[in-house]
Amino acid sequence: MPDSLTGLELRSTVSSDGKLTLSLEPVTLTPPGPDEVVVRVEAAPINPSDLGLLLGPADMATLEPGGTADRPTLTAAIPQARLGMMKARLDQSLPVGNEGAGTVVQAGENVAGLLGKKVGMIGGAMYAQYRKIAARDCIPLPEGASAADGASMFVNPLTALSMVETLRMEGHKALVHTAAASNLGQMLNRICIADGVPLVNIVRSEAQAAILRDIGAQYIIDSSAEDFREKLTDAIAETGATLAFDAIGGGRLVNAILHAMEAAANRNATEYSRYGSSTFKQVYIYGALDLGPTELDRGYGFAWSVSGFLLTPFLIKLGMEGALRLRARVAAELTTTFASHYTATISLADVLDPAVAAAYAKKATGEKYLIDPNR
Amino acid sequence: MPDSLTGLELRSTVSSDGKLTLSLEPVTLTPPGPDEVVVRVEAAPINPSDLGLLLGPADMATLEPGGTADRPTLTAAIPQARLGMMKARLDQSLPVGNEGAGTVVQAGENVAGLLGKKVGMIGGAMYAQYRKIAARDCIPLPEGASAADGASMFVNPLTALSMVETLRMEGHKALVHTAAASNLGQMLNRICIADGVPLVNIVRSEAQAAILRDIGAQYIIDSSAEDFREKLTDAIAETGATLAFDAIGGGRLVNAILHAMEAAANRNATEYSRYGSSTFKQVYIYGALDLGPTELDRGYGFAWSVSGFLLTPFLIKLGMEGALRLRARVAAELTTTFASHYTATISLADVLDPAVAAAYAKKATGEKYLIDPNR
Repeated sequence: MPDSLTGLELRSTVSSDGKLTLSLEPVTLTPPGPDEVVVRVEAAPINPSDLGLLLGPADMATLEPGGTADRPTLTAAIPQARLGMMKARLDQSLPVGNEGAGTVVQAGENVAGLLGKKVGMIGGAMYAQYRKIAARDCIPLPEGASAADGASMFVNPLTALSMVETLRMEGHKALVHTAAASNLGQMLNRICIADGVPLVNIVRSEAQAAILRDIGAQYIIDSSAEDFREKLTDAIAETGATLAFDAIGGGRLVNAILHAMEAAANRNATEYSRYGSSTFKQVYIYGALDLGPTELDRGYGFAWSVSGFLLTPFLIKLGMEGALRLRARVAAELTTTFASHYTATISLADVLDPAVAAAYAKKATGEKYLIDPNR
Repeated sequence: MPDSLTGLELRSTVSSDGKLTLSLEPVTLTPPGPDEVVVRVEAAPINPSDLGLLLGPADMATLEPGGTADRPTLTAAIPQARLGMMKARLDQSLPVGNEGAGTVVQAGENVAGLLGKKVGMIGGAMYAQYRKIAARDCIPLPEGASAADGASMFVNPLTALSMVETLRMEGHKALVHTAAASNLGQMLNRICIADGVPLVNIVRSEAQAAILRDIGAQYIIDSSAEDFREKLTDAIAETGATLAFDAIGGGRLVNAILHAMEAAANRNATEYSRYGSSTFKQVYIYGALDLGPTELDRGYGFAWSVSGFLLTPFLIKLGMEGALRLRARVAAELTTTFASHYTATISLADVLDPAVAAAYAKKATGEKYLIDPNR
């Protein structure tokens, strides 16, 4: 029987009087069950999807460091207006971190073969020095791959693959993607090029366009350009895209995409269709880079749908076999199609440093931070 | 071979310089084909779904009568900003009127049995003294039913029935409906009571609530009341409604419904779900009583969808057998479940009267105008 292990774990707490506190708590893990492993976490990314739980809707202007050098804390105020949305998590000390990678240091009897192996993991609570987890939520990394290589092998790769799976399941011909120069967007370009799926990339600057040109993207539309709407309509008409995935959420970009799809559908229309085209247009919102409201002016008939998209329910809908097929592709193409690049590697204590927090909370496209909890 | 018949037909034209013109044009009908009939139109409703084609986005403050007593016209200005949306219909003289009823005055050889019968019809161009139409787009009215009884037997009855069909197809338990005291909303209440489907009615005034109480509606929520959101959440929690049909479109009501559904889903949640509940919430927008943008703050997780809803594509999806089943129910319950009440019966010339136009364009809940083109 292996010993109990103790390590620090990052916790996020929102108090009922409106204060966010990040802290590092010592946690002692009991030995793994027969189908479990304990992993020393060596790399865990800060994804946009982690920030909601980590920082909540905190006012970033109020960040304040506290605690001791060994056990630092970081606090911030939550605006009163946003506290209502936090009701279900108030006064609970919550672990954070969707995914990560590291070395198996203890293994249950049924999974003893994993001992000493490097694995990627999904399941939350990854911003910790040790993570006990079911072996089925781990994937052994290919020979020669580092923990950093395997840290982001679930959320972004499976989300990008799910977009192409959705296209096939729902019978679309081409895809529109926003915030397209993101880590995920770059993966999506490599997938679509390999699979022959036309992809219309919407970016917000020339610098982002350059990133995608280097990958070989064919359709890159800059939303900051004056002829954005015409160019978008042209690309949609050419590809026949009737499906879009949007990482931004707030504002009028979803609306602009639906207008462009409708205009493209009507380009060849021979008579006036009073209720809009019969071409069905679907936009999935999977992120919230803009927390403002989504505005839909509905000037594109009635054949449209705007929906939330979340990875886990989609994988359940796809079924076990499909999900395993996607995982196998990620493992096989880990350092090519699904390679991630990080702006910086930081320690758990760094996560609680106000200057560092201000940087990773910006969610700047192309920037991504990696935590090494054992640094 | 019957003679050619000539009658007046209402036309709507939007010119490329931004002027709407309504006029009455004499139209001569060639004799019906073997499977066609010619119907003397005696009743055709002005539905909200007709107004878009009839008036476009005209500025109602600029209505101006013109023409002669026999051949009146009505003109109005279209705001420049809205002219772009009209591109596909510019400078075309378009007939108007989705549905109507009247007496068959000529019948093709295969459908001679319809001669002299009263029928309800769907297919556009009903604001006319005569309408030539395929017999399959007509339903003979039950014995004793008047043209007024049969005038609205397609759009509202089939839309209301389609809502309940959608509920069954998509596996929901209960339904939310807005503008619920409308003619359609009243039908929906009678259907849901007969079929045992829980229905949450959202109305905008106590007077509208009273209309629904008289029908026997169980859940009536007044959106003008201070405790609207709590009451709506209570009713949704009690019924388990995860599907809504919205006639209004613009503003924040769709958003409020999604929030209430999410709050109801979370009432019994035992732990914090960071991405929102897994309960899927669907709102269909089928009308546009408010032409403003739909605002979605997305504060209800990712398991939601907001979509346009249009009757004809839905009936195609339902299939021929299903569509005929719905039609048969409408015919059987025409003067009970599907009875319509009209504010006033007007002539074709009245449609072009500025004062009358101002009244029917208001789309006041519970008010509906009937045109008798042969008056």
